[in-house]
Amino acid sequence: MTQRKTVTAGILLIGDELLSGRTQDTNLAEIAKFLGPLGVQVREARILADDADTIRDSVRSFSEGYDYVFTTGGIGPTHDDITADCIAAAFDLGISEREDALNALRQRYSDAELNEARRRMARIPDGASLIDNPVSQAPGFQTRNVFTLAGVPQIMRGMLSDITHRIQGGAKVYQITVSASDIGEGDAAARLAAIEADYPGVSIGSYPWFNEELRGINFVARGQDEAVLMDVKIEIEALISDLRKA
Amino acid sequence: MTQRKTVTAGILLIGDELLSGRTQDTNLAEIAKFLGPLGVQVREARILADDADTIRDSVRSFSEGYDYVFTTGGIGPTHDDITADCIAAAFDLGISEREDALNALRQRYSDAELNEARRRMARIPDGASLIDNPVSQAPGFQTRNVFTLAGVPQIMRGMLSDITHRIQGGAKVYQITVSASDIGEGDAAARLAAIEADYPGVSIGSYPWFNEELRGINFVARGQDEAVLMDVKIEIEALISDLRKA
Repeated sequence: MTQRKTVTAGILLIGDELLSGRTQDTNLAEIAKFLGPLGVQVREARILADDADTIRDSVRSFSEGYDYVFTTGGIGPTHDDITADCIAAAFDLGISEREDALNALRQRYSDAELNEARRRMARIPDGASLIDNPVSQAPGFQTRNVFTLAGVPQIMRGMLSDITHRIQGGAKVYQITVSASDIGEGDAAARLAAIEADYPGVSIGSYPWFNEELRGINFVARGQDEAVLMDVKIEIEALISDLRKA
Repeated sequence: MTQRKTVTAGILLIGDELLSGRTQDTNLAEIAKFLGPLGVQVREARILADDADTIRDSVRSFSEGYDYVFTTGGIGPTHDDITADCIAAAFDLGISEREDALNALRQRYSDAELNEARRRMARIPDGASLIDNPVSQAPGFQTRNVFTLAGVPQIMRGMLSDITHRIQGGAKVYQITVSASDIGEGDAAARLAAIEADYPGVSIGSYPWFNEELRGINFVARGQDEAVLMDVKIEIEALISDLRKA
């Protein structure tokens, strides 16, 4: 099997509403599920308040630390939409209203509707390329390895379709899940660690679950070789079977 | 009105499964909604992989940067449960199996069941105090200003009841929401910024929403003075009414 390099991503989810408990983020999982099949592993995510210094510093640090960075939120027309300025500041770039972004907005808004607030959505860091927004037209943009997307999930999802071709993925990570009810995580732990040790490159997690009537565990194994994962699956199934006999 | 100081929290959500898109975190919102009424504002959250160095460094940085820190995940019996060791490392503390924690586990497990894996759940950083777990007994713990909780939402929620009395809250932040369908965010933006400028200490966000038939905006104003927020609500309602007439 050819060894391919690991390509990583960091995600910055921006907005006070995500930290107050008012809004439940779903963009992280959506982006992670988009990137997995492209061979990009999400290594860290941060949920940030609408604070310019924090956003700027986090963009800078993630851009250096990961192959790709995604930001969501803060690119609308209102006063608390400060992400574009923070991206420009992170890279010491200028920022100005751009004709290509205005043209995208003109697909949606008449000249009368294109007021000063909406024109803010055409302010793009120098040198960034636009990311198409098929849902509500106001574009996202790519600045070096940073993709800046909308926060509204439907719009964010639409923008992802204009990102696939910009990604140079690496090794894909595959995953198998084995679910078992009525066995104890602590009874499985020692042998589970031994299985993981026997299969270098495979990581195994165990995740207890509950509902009103049942409790159980999902065993999840992840790795780059699907054939090896099938072997691991058989080992985990044998472990479960032995625990049930005990 | 008495000015009370702002008390802050940072939250570290630990686990590969949160970054792969496999598991949707709900603990952040749960903790934020728990802390709000106690007068503690969540300022930042990070979602971290099961990587010891990253967890240790993030704990250290959050413990310095925020009044309170919460971690969720990684305190079970399996090999990938490394949070307790990372907390000890963050504060240069020893860590060992503790009798008080073992006693908690004995409420649930017989001596035969209390194998080496399960005894790992009794390893607690030196000087930490236990946090009661009414759901599955294995305790969380408090190390200085850091609360280490389980990742399973039902267990995490149960542990919160043993945290309330440890929190010295500050100024409470109240919130009002005004929802309006069929108006444009860009049409509201300029006047919304003016309203925010007129009411120091109030922050206003606008959050577009969509469903199959309707689109609209939630206007959310947050601040420490409920009476002022009522005035802001009236201003926002007037703004909406004027936009509908235009």
